[in-house]
Parts: sequence; structure tokens; C-alpha cells
Amino acid sequence: MATGKLIVFVCIAVLFLVLSKTRLSSCQQFAIPFQQPSHCGSEKYFDISSLSCVQCGINQVRSVSGTSCVCQVRHRVVSSNGGAITCQKCPADSKPGVTQDGFDCIRCPGGLNTEGKCQCPPGRILVERNRNGMLLDEAICETCNGTEPSFAVPNLFGDRCVRCQETYINTTNSCECGQTNMPAGGLCFPQNNLPTTVVSVVNYAQLAISVQSVWFAENMQAVAAACLIYSNLTACQALGNMCVMNLNSLSSVNNDACGLFNTIHRSTAALGSAQMISFWRANLPWLYYGDQAGLASRVLFTESFPTSFSFKGAAQNTNIQFTAAVYNTKGNFLKWQNVKGGTLQLCPDTVIRLNAAYRFGTTYRQSCQIPLSKILTDFPEPIFYDIYMDFSSGNGQKSLWAVPVRNLNLQYNGQFVNQGDNLNNWYLTRRIFLVDTLSGRENTLASQPKVIRVATKITISIQLEPNTQKGVIKTPLMTVSYTDILVSDPDTQSVSVSFSVEYEMNQSEAQIQTDIALGVLGGMAVLYSLLKTASWKRQVGSPLIDLQTVLKFLLFYAGDLANVFFVVTVGTGLYWLIFFKAQQFVTVLLPLHVQEKRFVTYVGCAFTLKAVQFLHKIISQLSIDIFFIDWERPRGKVLKTAEGNGDIKSAPAPVSIWRTYFVANEWNELQTVRKINPVFQIFAVLFFLEVVGFSNLALMDPSSNLSRDPQSYQAPWNLILRYGVATSMWLVIGFLQIIFFTVFYERFVEDKIRQFVDLCSMSNISVLLFSNRCFGYYIHGRSVHGHADTNMEEMNLNLKREAENLCGQRGLLPNTDIQTFQVSITNKMRLQYDRIREPLSRRTGPSRLLDSSANPFEQSTKAYHTMNKFLGSFIDHAHREMDYIVKDKLLMERVLGMEFMEPMEKSLFYNDDSHSFSDVLYYGNEATLLIFDTLFFCIVDIGTQDFVLAAVLTYVQQKVFKLIRNATGRKNLASKTLVDERFLI
Amino acid sequence: MATGKLIVFVCIAVLFLVLSKTRLSSCQQFAIPFQQPSHCGSEKYFDISSLSCVQCGINQVRSVSGTSCVCQVRHRVVSSNGGAITCQKCPADSKPGVTQDGFDCIRCPGGLNTEGKCQCPPGRILVERNRNGMLLDEAICETCNGTEPSFAVPNLFGDRCVRCQETYINTTNSCECGQTNMPAGGLCFPQNNLPTTVVSVVNYAQLAISVQSVWFAENMQAVAAACLIYSNLTACQALGNMCVMNLNSLSSVNNDACGLFNTIHRSTAALGSAQMISFWRANLPWLYYGDQAGLASRVLFTESFPTSFSFKGAAQNTNIQFTAAVYNTKGNFLKWQNVKGGTLQLCPDTVIRLNAAYRFGTTYRQSCQIPLSKILTDFPEPIFYDIYMDFSSGNGQKSLWAVPVRNLNLQYNGQFVNQGDNLNNWYLTRRIFLVDTLSGRENTLASQPKVIRVATKITISIQLEPNTQKGVIKTPLMTVSYTDILVSDPDTQSVSVSFSVEYEMNQSEAQIQTDIALGVLGGMAVLYSLLKTASWKRQVGSPLIDLQTVLKFLLFYAGDLANVFFVVTVGTGLYWLIFFKAQQFVTVLLPLHVQEKRFVTYVGCAFTLKAVQFLHKIISQLSIDIFFIDWERPRGKVLKTAEGNGDIKSAPAPVSIWRTYFVANEWNELQTVRKINPVFQIFAVLFFLEVVGFSNLALMDPSSNLSRDPQSYQAPWNLILRYGVATSMWLVIGFLQIIFFTVFYERFVEDKIRQFVDLCSMSNISVLLFSNRCFGYYIHGRSVHGHADTNMEEMNLNLKREAENLCGQRGLLPNTDIQTFQVSITNKMRLQYDRIREPLSRRTGPSRLLDSSANPFEQSTKAYHTMNKFLGSFIDHAHREMDYIVKDKLLMERVLGMEFMEPMEKSLFYNDDSHSFSDVLYYGNEATLLIFDTLFFCIVDIGTQDFVLAAVLTYVQQKVFKLIRNATGRKNLASKTLVDERFLI
Repeated sequence: MATGKLIVFVCIAVLFLVLSKTRLSSCQQFAIPFQQPSHCGSEKYFDISSLSCVQCGINQVRSVSGTSCVCQVRHRVVSSNGGAITCQKCPADSKPGVTQDGFDCIRCPGGLNTEGKCQCPPGRILVERNRNGMLLDEAICETCNGTEPSFAVPNLFGDRCVRCQETYINTTNSCECGQTNMPAGGLCFPQNNLPTTVVSVVNYAQLAISVQSVWFAENMQAVAAACLIYSNLTACQALGNMCVMNLNSLSSVNNDACGLFNTIHRSTAALGSAQMISFWRANLPWLYYGDQAGLASRVLFTESFPTSFSFKGAAQNTNIQFTAAVYNTKGNFLKWQNVKGGTLQLCPDTVIRLNAAYRFGTTYRQSCQIPLSKILTDFPEPIFYDIYMDFSSGNGQKSLWAVPVRNLNLQYNGQFVNQGDNLNNWYLTRRIFLVDTLSGRENTLASQPKVIRVATKITISIQLEPNTQKGVIKTPLMTVSYTDILVSDPDTQSVSVSFSVEYEMNQSEAQIQTDIALGVLGGMAVLYSLLKTASWKRQVGSPLIDLQTVLKFLLFYAGDLANVFFVVTVGTGLYWLIFFKAQQFVTVLLPLHVQEKRFVTYVGCAFTLKAVQFLHKIISQLSIDIFFIDWERPRGKVLKTAEGNGDIKSAPAPVSIWRTYFVANEWNELQTVRKINPVFQIFAVLFFLEVVGFSNLALMDPSSNLSRDPQSYQAPWNLILRYGVATSMWLVIGFLQIIFFTVFYERFVEDKIRQFVDLCSMSNISVLLFSNRCFGYYIHGRSVHGHADTNMEEMNLNLKREAENLCGQRGLLPNTDIQTFQVSITNKMRLQYDRIREPLSRRTGPSRLLDSSANPFEQSTKAYHTMNKFLGSFIDHAHREMDYIVKDKLLMERVLGMEFMEPMEKSLFYNDDSHSFSDVLYYGNEATLLIFDTLFFCIVDIGTQDFVLAAVLTYVQQKVFKLIRNATGRKNLASKTLVDERFLI
Repeated sequence: MATGKLIVFVCIAVLFLVLSKTRLSSCQQFAIPFQQPSHCGSEKYFDISSLSCVQCGINQVRSVSGTSCVCQVRHRVVSSNGGAITCQKCPADSKPGVTQDGFDCIRCPGGLNTEGKCQCPPGRILVERNRNGMLLDEAICETCNGTEPSFAVPNLFGDRCVRCQETYINTTNSCECGQTNMPAGGLCFPQNNLPTTVVSVVNYAQLAISVQSVWFAENMQAVAAACLIYSNLTACQALGNMCVMNLNSLSSVNNDACGLFNTIHRSTAALGSAQMISFWRANLPWLYYGDQAGLASRVLFTESFPTSFSFKGAAQNTNIQFTAAVYNTKGNFLKWQNVKGGTLQLCPDTVIRLNAAYRFGTTYRQSCQIPLSKILTDFPEPIFYDIYMDFSSGNGQKSLWAVPVRNLNLQYNGQFVNQGDNLNNWYLTRRIFLVDTLSGRENTLASQPKVIRVATKITISIQLEPNTQKGVIKTPLMTVSYTDILVSDPDTQSVSVSFSVEYEMNQSEAQIQTDIALGVLGGMAVLYSLLKTASWKRQVGSPLIDLQTVLKFLLFYAGDLANVFFVVTVGTGLYWLIFFKAQQFVTVLLPLHVQEKRFVTYVGCAFTLKAVQFLHKIISQLSIDIFFIDWERPRGKVLKTAEGNGDIKSAPAPVSIWRTYFVANEWNELQTVRKINPVFQIFAVLFFLEVVGFSNLALMDPSSNLSRDPQSYQAPWNLILRYGVATSMWLVIGFLQIIFFTVFYERFVEDKIRQFVDLCSMSNISVLLFSNRCFGYYIHGRSVHGHADTNMEEMNLNLKREAENLCGQRGLLPNTDIQTFQVSITNKMRLQYDRIREPLSRRTGPSRLLDSSANPFEQSTKAYHTMNKFLGSFIDHAHREMDYIVKDKLLMERVLGMEFMEPMEKSLFYNDDSHSFSDVLYYGNEATLLIFDTLFFCIVDIGTQDFVLAAVLTYVQQKVFKLIRNATGRKNLASKTLVDERFLI
């Protein structure tokens, strides 16, 4: 027992040891506590090597930076070797002061300052060493000799006498400014007519806040005076910058920055203008274009920019070169700067994407949120830009074209004149800044600004010269909108900024052309619709013009107008696509977003009208009359035993209904067969748009490449181009499909329509169908073999005989092949037809209740047989009073799609090689269906700008309409032909 | 005539005037020539107001900045008012020199410098004014008193005596450094054991270039000495920075930067370590983790980071806080900096996107090209970072966790030890820089660097603790790769840089589990395939195990193995999708890109094997035997006139073949009907993935939102997640479709399979088909009415009677409803079947040549009738030696899908309610088709990462296989049933 316990104990001990061992080996943690220089306290300094607070030596305190120790007040440094220092108290009685360099003790004549060093009264300098460096026992407070020729005053540090500022000497011939003169900003000005007080309050209108700006208070008076009196160029620029910081706003006040600027501008008129520009006064910055009414439109539209732009070819020039003259707040000219690389773009991005803004023809939009803290760090003081555009003047020398600025926040006598659309009220300016963190500082220049001003929206608009063939543009306009931001918590606040470059041209001509096209084509549509209505009137066999006629006209007109709108919109889309993307010298530019609205309305009209037409067609198709005429006659009599007694009776052999079932079944399957494969169409369009990259053609840039580098800037979509690309894809692929199916597939693989006609012949069944009351189609299917209701041997034999041309031809007329006809029947014939069909149509109607005695089932079977017989005899010319003649359609009849002759005495059978009975099926209406699908796809895309969604919804739409058409068509077929729905599968 | 000329002249003149007027009014061009300060020449200055070059006044030249004029050499300023100045020559004889301030003339004791001002010999100061500012007639060159206690030397400007540097005084008690001591960098060092010469050449290994670095040459000796001798903290940091600029490379050379650092590190061992970290010597920066073997793995894997991360919930913590201690080149500690906001990311981007790098779980990759000119502007001198990770230590105090750096360019004795994968050779370091434009400067510090070094690839790897339930991570590792760039033309050169954050965990466990699953399921697949092969052997009625059997086994096995791979890959995909995206505390992280390869291989296997199975199924389906048994018997005899004479003969009425045609046609249409709508399936998947945004779930970030803000960072795709999302979409939508079709559509709208069985009954035709030699299906279609080949009246009557339950049931056995059976026939029966079918199969074979005498057409018709009769009598139990019994399948037989009993004496008919004859159609193989489509879609997506392309190609694939299946199936049907292809439409 004891041994057991011992073993357990040893085990635990070993385990413990192992564990502690593990603990020890891993105890080398690479973790340190976080300590900051500012939190070390006054007795400790921050050791930058170990990143921790360390105690200072004796008599020492932390330095200002916190990373070292310095001697306490009234202590001198005894020794220092770059690392540690030792300090010693200066004898309070003999030499209480510490020298400026801190290494010695000295007696002070005046007294000690808070740092324990000597202090002299203002206007005197402190001297601690002799000229040769010998340390004095007692420091001297020396007065500088301010008289001619020395003109000396203490320097900034108060340790030396230097020559005083030249303006003092100029004004008073001494280093005093004198009573009557005005000292300001370190200069001395003689009496002048500038206002004696200036407005240094900045009004932030958006925030309804005023800030007493320390920068304005300290400098405005001085720079204005220096500019006016001494023509100091830098001072003039600085004054101009102050005016720009005040957003160039003008009012009746003449002692704010812009007021002073204008005062000086007026009073220096004698100096003449710089660079021959009237409002650009010599020595002053050029801030305004001038204040005449209508000047803005003259500036923007009179002159064309001398360089032309071209997207492609040898003279390719898509490079817009903006150059800015850059000034700092103090008025110094810093440099000429190319604005590429994001000079004017506050949002950070890669250089490639930033520079895309200056590629001609690329609509550029950039926007982002920038934390206020980043703005405050990146822009300690405002930078001012005068923007020019580069061009080559006649002699090949580089010249600059001034770019006017429309400052939306400019106030002219309290009015925001630039915010309206009236060009004549605009007041164009020149200089801009991006961020002003200076004018909002209230107490000292080092303090955090209370309010900052950011150019949150910069737009460069480039307008094409009307009717240019050479890519000539007007003077570009830069629109700037500033936002005032109250700085409360820079770490959480952020600013939303944007930068965009837009291209526009006068679209009125294009619009007029569109309107003309719409008008002309619309008028033709009216005529064509009238024609169709007339044709329809004839086909329904009614001469009256009633409400139904008007309605029908409107329906036809909807379809034709839809086509007109479709043609016009596709034309417009293709026009922009081809002319914008393929142009060499720039002659057209895309419509702006607002100008697209009209286009979208047109597409909407096209879609709505097309939908009306489509629904009308479907509904018409769902109510056609159709009958299958069975030519088969009993083969003879069948001998069968009568049911009652054992007698053998002979009765006509029953004719099998299965052929009719077969034909009806096939007809049912034909209903929604289309000329193209609609699903393949959608997938093909999607493939070319999204995978191959045709959608990239809809980007608002001059590139016509299908693939884009993901690193490069992606321009925004243009709705019209998207429409153009999508519709052309739809139409081209649809057209190719139609060609493929008609030329190859239906000829060599299978043609459902021809198969159906063949089937009619083989099954000895004709089809008569009426799309209108007195108009329809006839498929002649009388078997050339007399009988089709037979067994396999005979069928195969028949097929073989026909293949070997051993029997007659299938046509209605002897020795012809034509099996399909358009039929125009007389009113009489139709009345007879309706009379026979009455019991059939009554079957489903409410009239069944009227004579419930008669068996409806029997009645309808009887009607079926009567109809079969009647129509058979009609085709066989058995009714003299209801005969028909077969003829060819006239060319004009074919072209116009209407019949000139009215069937008065005899019905008319028109030969019809082109199987036009498919007009009552999807098959014959491919154009309508394709255009409807196209418009549906485009409407979804316009709404969502998503081709994938458009494709999915188009598929769903196709599927839904197909289901409806199939189900309802099947019901109609069953009710009209008496074939049970169970056989229509 | 003269008047005419006059009028013309006046007209021209007026025209000219008008034109010139227009010209004048528009002559106000806002264009100026481009002039630059540097191009104005020495006589002109750049007027910053008018932006043009303007002539300087007399005796004046352009200033250095170029924007103003200054007096010529030996000329003093007479007056200056801030704007213009006037200059005057100093009298060459009396006072030839100009004072330092430029306003006076003075006599010089020494001589004049090039600027025309007085110059004193070195070591003396120039005095122009008295102590009180009185200007002297002649300047004085004064020697500073360098002895105790003055210790004065001339200051930097040479105009004043100041106390000399303390180290001189310390070392020699004078302002001379002395013979035996060493002056360096403005300090004086006593004798020491540091090397007397240092290597100031920087080797750029990648370029094979060495640069004599002026920074190293000027400062290395001094900082090393100051660090060692005076323990100057800043100097120590500066030396450390030099070592970091040399990429921390160590070699046997002891007088390069790192050599000096290590020498000092060794010789200051007595000072002890800072922060209890052994390799962090007091006063020195912490550069290395140490040089023991295997230290790297201990640093990286021993300790866990104390903070845990969680994606969701109350304890959500996805914030990775990196803090850097920032030093400048001179060794000053600048600040503690949070690395957010792009401190370490060279590529510009918005703050939101930049900060996404530090959101836990977001795989972050950023790369771009940066122009060299931008780098040179943005990084005038290198900044050094010691990276730490924040955490809260036990008492809630903020602490820092050191992040080790794996510098790929570090050389240890000439070896790139960190580039290998062997962790034990790694040599981890601490400090990094982003851009070094300093060490590559050759002659002066102001010159452009010859070579710069950029951290072009920074990767932060975060590794999850294995089996953690709390989101605990290991110490992160920062891998840095530097690139040397020879600066030739900064405006055109650019650098490609990247920054990434990657997350990894040990995937071996997941891999083992996958392997186990594959092994277990694979084994079961073998068993199941063996079972299937056995069943097949029985169905073909051959007991031999031959090559065909093995092949068949392999084909079955391919299918089962495909399912195994599919299950495992879908499971893996779903596992990652659910566990990664839905986890609260982080327990799993996604596999890295290299770890995905294995997965892709599995998917590839699944697809290939599934394709084999799919093709096998299709090919099997295309060779089935099928026969339509027509039960219809002639109704009686037909009396008809014999052709030769006029006798009336009676012959059996022919049985119409049209019912057979109808049934065959419907069967043909059934072939590619599927349980689901495959096109809708594709569109629905595409809709949910691309439009609804399920594809966003495949992004490698912790968010499980379906929509993402376009402004935010988009993480890269993960292949496994894409596969998981895509397959789950396919399976879920497929499953929903199957439910919809079976539960709703087939019950209430239409069920094609049931319709076909009904049709058989109504048309009095049975279908017998053999999928294997002795196994097949039977659809009993004997009409309960005796006859079906009849006219419409009777058909409608029959339908009505059946609807009213007035006739018998349709089943094969009396009083049953079961019409569909699985059939297992005896060998004998099959031989008989084959014997009858011989003429049919011979028809297409080459054997036709053998007996060309017989009419093949007649023969096959005969064979058809014989077969019809034989099969009819077989079903009617007419053959005693070939009888059959009807029975139910056992449960196990159903489950295993094989028959236990062998049909020895009698054939076996198994009741089959579930219409399993659809196994020979697409309809019965929905699972295989759906999985094949899914895998096809995913394979395309894995290859191209484009769901749209995958959808398009999947549609094309479906369409192609459907066409092939349809066309070939139709041929097979025609050849097996003798129904002419023209009726299969």
C-alpha cells in the first residue's frame, strides 16, 4: 500500500517537474508593457531603446520631448557625454543664473527668467561672452544703436544687434515707425488711404458660424499695405489668397480680403494689365475674369481651344494637359505643376487610375470618404492653384490657356450667383484651393482649426465645338463646390469628396434628327396601320366602321409605332456606339446623364407598345378556328354479328380517329415552336456581353477594347451605349440564328412546318383554319394513295411508292405540288360554317341549359361529321353555290399583305408556298417575339444595369408566355376540333 | 460700270471691317506663353504676378530662387521697400566689401569671398558690428578663446564664438581633440577598441552594384563610437538603423554597420538586457531575436497571442491592432503609431479599404505600380518601424507583443537563410523600413540616390492555434522582401509593390479526415459496384466472368467513385462555408491557395468519373431493344372488289398502324424529358449566385452578407468556398425543383410518364423493352374496350365509360391496376426473341449481301407481324414452355436494385408501381444528370472563376448531349420498331 502511494507521489512529482520545466522554457515572452513619453511623469524620461520610463538623475527633470533629462532650473550641466549628464546648482549668491548654453553659472544684471537664465528688458540684448568667446562673470544688457548708419535693433533671439527692417528706415530714417505711420506685420507703412481696420472674421455661411481668424487678423492689413504701397509681389499674392480663402465673395464691405483686393485693383489701374488680359492687373494675382454681364458665356464659348483631340490614328491625342501655377499661403510662387498624379484629386488611388481623369473622352468620376484627421495631417496649410491648359502656339512654343473656375459658393452681394443656370449671372474666377485649414484657426496659428473648408466637389466640364470635324473643344470650365466643416472630433469625422471630368456637346441637333425620324416614321406607321385595318376589315367580312375597328386600328398602330420607336432607339444606340467609339478626330461626345432621360422614355414607349402588340397577337392566336378534314372513307363494309341475335350484318368499317389525333397532337406541339432557339439566344447574348466583354463597349471612355486591365480606371456606364450594345447583340445573334435555321437546319436536319404538311398528306387529313372570320389558311392533305388508315405494310409501300415517284402529286390542283393556301371565303360560306359549328360552340357556352334534353355529346359528334362532310365537299367543288377558285396572289398583294379582291361569289384560294399559316403560330411571328424579348431585356437592364438579371428575367418571361400560350392554345384546339385534350400531349 | 466696281469695293471694305471687328472683339484671348523661373536667364527675374520674365534693375542680377533680383557682387542695397531695390557699387578702394546683410560697404581685413563679402581665415569669426550694433568701418577677424573656462570655438556661421562640443572638453579639457583621440561627426572620442576604419560601401546584391554611401561614410564611425563610448541612445538607434538599411545581414566583416552593432552588442553585455528580453541589450535597439538554431520555431509556435478573436456575437473582436515604434534615420524616436491608415501599405487607397487589412479573417491582397518619382518625393529619408501587436495584459493595461520579421533578403555569411522553408535556419529580426532613398546617395546627401531599396512585398501571416475553440492565434509573422532599384529615369520607372495579410491553420487534420472519408466511402463503392456487376451479369443471362464483365465493373465503379468524390468535395465545401462563415469564436481558417490544389484534384476526379458514368448510361440507353405489341385484331372481314375481275371478296380489315405511330412518336418525345427543368436550373443558379449575391459568400472574409458596399475592400475568392456555394445552390435548387415537379406539377398539371402509360391503354398497345439481354420492362397497354382502332364516337364513348368506371381494370392480371412491370426473361425466351428479330437486325447489317434474293422489306414486315403475334401470345400465356409468373419484388431486392431469383423455367414479371422503365430515359437518371451538370458547372468555374461562363457552357453541354441522345435514340427506335423516322417528329 505504501509503495503504491510512493509511486503515485513520485509520478506526480515527476509530472510537476516536467510541467514546470515546460513553463520555464517558454517563459521568454516577447511582450512588453506599453509606455508613452507623455505618461512618464516629470521625474522620468522615456528610454527610446527599451521603450520604457526611466528615472532621471539627481537634480534633473524630463526634457520637453520627454526622451532625455535636463538639469533642473538654476542648475548647470557639469558634464555631458552625449548620454548621461550631471547637474550642479549654481551658487545663488554669486552667480545665480545659468548661461544660455547651460554649462556655466553667471551673474545677471536684470534678473532671472523662469528657466533660471538671465533676462534683459525689452529692446536690449543679452551678452554673456566677449567677442572672442571669453565668458563674462556678469552678463550685460546692451541697448542697440538705432541711429544712422547703424540702424540696429535686437534680433529675434535677443542676443545680438542687427540692422532693422528696411521699411522703417525708408519711412522714418530710423528704426522707429513713428506716430503717424502704421507698423504692421514687421513692416512700417507711411500714411495711406487703405482702411485702418480690417475685417478678420471669416463667415462660414453653411454652418452659420463666424470665426475670428488669427491669420487674417495678423496679416491682412500688412499684406494689403505692402501690396499697395511697396508693390510687394508676394504680399499681393498673399492678399489674393486671402480673398480666395473668402471664396472670392464680393460685397459692399471694402475692408475684408476681397474688398481690399478690389480697392487695390482699382487704385493701381495706372499700372496696366499683365499679359494683355484686362482684369489681370500688373503686380496683382489674376482672381476674376471681370464683372460685365454675359462675360461668362463669352469666356466659355467665343474662343476654341487651339489643340484638337483625336482618339485614334497617327494624330492620336487624348492627353489633356493641365498645368497649375502653385502658390502657398504666404504668396510665394512654389512651382509650375502638372496636375497629373492626383494634384487636384483628394481621393487616394493609384497613379494609373488617377491619371485616367486626364485622358480625353474618358468620363471620370471619383468619390470617397476621407477622415478629417487625415486631411488635417496632409494639409497643414492651404495651397493655391491657378489652372491652365497646355497647348502649342503657332511657333511650337508651349503656351497656357486659362481655365475659368465657377465657384458655386461665391457670393456677390449676398447672392450665390454661380449656383443658378443662368450663364449671364455667373461670375468666373481663377484661383482655387483644395483644403483651407488656416483661416479657421482662432487663437494661435499652432492651434487646431475650428472650421476647415474643403473643395468637396470639383468638376471639369469639357464641351465640344459644335459641328467640329477635328476634335476642337471650347474653353473647359472647372466647377468647384466648397464645404465648411466644423472640427469637433477629427478621428471620427469624415468628409465626402468627389472629383469628376465630364464631356458634353450640344445635343439639340441629334435631338432634332431623332424627332424628325420619329415624325416621319410615325406618319408612315399611321398609313401602314390604316392599310392593315382595311385588310382586316375585309378579312372579317364586315364593312362597318365601328368601335372594334377603331380599337383594332389602335392595336395595329401600337405595333407599328413600337417598331418605329425600336428602330429609332436602336439607331440612336448604334449611332453613339459607332460614332463615339470609332471616331478618329473627336466629332461627337456622349449625352450627359440628364440627356439620357428622353432616350429612356423612347425605349419605354417601344417596350410598352410592343407588349401591347405581342399580347394582341397571342390573344388573336388563341381564338382561331381550326378543323381537321378527314378524307378517309370506309374501305368497305364490315361483316359483324349483330349484338341481339346471331345475324351477320354488314356495316361500314369505322374510320380510325387516330390519324386525326396524330395530326392534332403535332399541331399542338407546333404552337410555340420558334424560328430561333430563344434560350440559346439569351445565353449567347449573355456570353458575348459578359464573358467576351462586349459590355465594356458601353463604358464612357474612348477605348474600344473588349477587355480592360483590372488595374486601370473603369469609367461609368452609359445607358445609351448599353442599350446599343445589347440590342445589336440581340439582333445580330438573332439574325445569325435565323440564317442558320433557315439555310442549314431546316434544310438538312428538320423543318417542323414542312414535316407537319407532309404528315397531313400521309395521314390523309387536311387542315382548314380561320384566323379571321372570312380569312384563313388551308393545308391540303389528301393522300395520293386514296387510303392512309391502313397497316404497316401498306403504309411503308405507300411511302416507298411516293419516294420512287410512282404516284400522283400532292397538290390541290391536279399535277401541282402546292399544298398550302391562304383562303378568303365568302360570307355565305362562313355562315354555313358557323351554322354547322353551332352545337360545338354551344357545348361550352351557357346555352347548354336551354335544351338540356338533347345529348350534347351526340350533337357534337354529329356536328363533327357534318362539318367533315361539308368541308370535304366544299374542297371537292361539290357545292355549286359555294365554290372557290385557286389563284396566285399579285405582287402588290404579297408586299402589302392584303387582298385586293373581295370574295363575292366564289371563295378565293391563294397559292401560298411560304407556309404562311404559321402566322397563327409563334413560328410566323419571330420578328415580334425577338423584338419583344430584346426590349424586355433592355428595359430590365436600364432599370438595374445588370445583364445577368436581365437574362434571367427574359428567360422567365419567355417561359411564362410560352406556358400560357401552350395551355390556352391546347384548350382552343381541343374545343374547336373535338380532339380530347388527353391526346394532345 | 464704275459704280458697280465702287459698290463691290465698298461691300468688300464693309465685310472686311465687320470681320476685323469680330476678330477684335474676340481677340481677348485668355492665353499666355509658358515661362519658367529657371529659363529667364541671369538678367531677368520671374514675375510671380504676371508669370513672365521681367528685366532686373541696373546693377542687379537674378536671385537664386529666380523670383526676384539682388544686387550684383560688390554692390550694396541702397534702398529696398519689399518690392524694388536699388543697388550701388561699393567703393573698391575704401570699403570694397559688402556687409553680411547687404546694406552697407565695409573694409575687410582678410579679403573678399566670391559673393563680395568679407572672409576670415578658418577658425576665426567675422565681426562687422560692435556689441551695440554700431557698424565698424573695418571688419575684424577674431580668434575664439578655446581655453578653460571659455572653451569657445566659432559657430557654424562663423560670426560668433560659442562653447565647444562637450565631448572635446571631456576628452582633452580643451576644444581640440588631440592627437591620440578620434574626432568624428562633430564629437571627439577617446581611444577605444572600435575598428578605425569602417565599410561605408553598400552592396546591392540584386543589381550587383556597390555604392560608396555618403551617409554611412559620414556617420557610421561617429554613431558607433557615440553609442559605445557615451551610450548615446540616439546614436545607438542610428547605428541600428544603418544595420537595418544593410538588411540586417551578418558576415565575418566586423566593421560594417551590423558588424559594429554586434561588436557593441557583445561588449556591452554587462549592461544587461532591456525588458527582460535576452537579445535586447540596454541602450541598443532590439534588432535580432538571437542566433540559436531553432529559435524561429520557438518564437513563432511556443506562445499564443493572449487576445482571442471572434467574428460575431457579443464578444466580437475582429480588430487586429498593430502599433509601431517609429524612428527616423538619425535615431530619434518619433512616436508610437497605429499602423492603420496605410502606414505600411505603399499602394494608395481609401482609408476604409486600407484598414480592411487589419480586420481579422479578411484575407487581404493589395498590389500596384508606383512611379519612382512619387517614391522619391514621398520618402526623402527612410523611416524605421518596430512592429508590435496590442493586447490587454492581465490587469487591463495595454501591452505590446513583438511581431517577428522574416527578412527574405537577410544574408547570414552570404547565405539567404530566410528564403528556405526550413524554419530552423531562419533568422528572425525586428526592425523594418519601407523605402530607403538615403544609403544609395553617393556624393552628397542632397544628390539624387543612385540606388533605392523598397520593401516590395510585405506579408503578414497569422496562424491559428490548432484545435482552438476561442480564436487564439500564434505570434504573427511579418515577411518582408526588399528590392533594389537602380535610379536612372524616375519619371518613367515604376516599382511593383504588394502588401498582403494571410491566415492559415494546420490543415493536416482536415486532410486526414478527408482521406478517411474517401477511403471508407471508396471501399463501400467497390462493394456496391460488385453488387451491381453481379446484378448485371444475371440480367444479361451470362455466367462467365470475361473482359466485358471487368469493364462493366470498372464502369459501375467509376460512377460510384464519382459519387464518393462528389460527396466528399461537397462536404468539404460546405464544411468550410459553414464553419468559416458562421463561426463565432474563430476555430477554423480557410486553406491557403496551395492547399486548394488537392481539392481541385478531387473535383477533377469527380467530374471525370461522372462523365464516364454519364456517357456509359447514355450509350446503354441508345442500344435498348423495344417493341410495341399491337393487341388490335381486325374487326371483321372487309368486302372488296378484287382487282382483276369484278368479284367481291372478303378479306380481314387492315389494322391501322397509326396507333403504333402515335405511341412511338410519344416515346420518342419522352427520351430526354427530365424530372427538372434544366434550363431553369441554370438560370436560377445564376440568379442566386450573381444577382442575389450568394457568390459573395465565397470571398475570403468573415462577413456573411450577400451584398457588399462597392466602396469597401473586396477580398479575393476562395475556390473551395466558390465550389461550396455553387454546388449547394445547384443541389438545393435541383432538390426544390424535384419536389415541385413530383409533388405539384406532375400531380396537378401533367405527368408525361403517366400520360404515356395511359396512352398505351387507350391505343391498345403494349410496350416491351429490354435494357439488358434478359432484363427489361413491360408496359401493359391492352385496351379494356377490346378495340381502339375506331372512330371518334367510339373513342369518346370508351373514354367516358372508363371515366365512369363502367369497364374492367387496366392491369395485366385481372382486377388489378398495375400496368408496368420489370421483366426478367428466360434464356429460351430471349433466344426465341432474337430468332424472330433476326431479319430486322439483318436489314442494316452487311449480311444483306448474303441473300439479296429475298426482299428485305417484306422480310422485316413479316418479322414484325411474327414478333407481334409471338409477344402477344407470350403475354397471353399461350406458350406453355415459355410462360411467366407475376410477383412482387422483395424489399431487399428493391433496396439493392437486383433480382435474387434467376428465371430458369419461367420468366418473371415484377410488379413495378414506380414506372422504373424510365431508367432507360433521361427521366429515370435525374441524379446522375444533375450531378454531372453541377460538376461541369463547377469545373468551368474553377478554371475561369466566372459563373456566367460556367452557366453558358453548361447550357451548351446540356443541349449538345440532348441533341445527340435524341437523334441517336430516334434512330434506335426506328430500327427496333420498324416505325418510319418520318413519324417520329
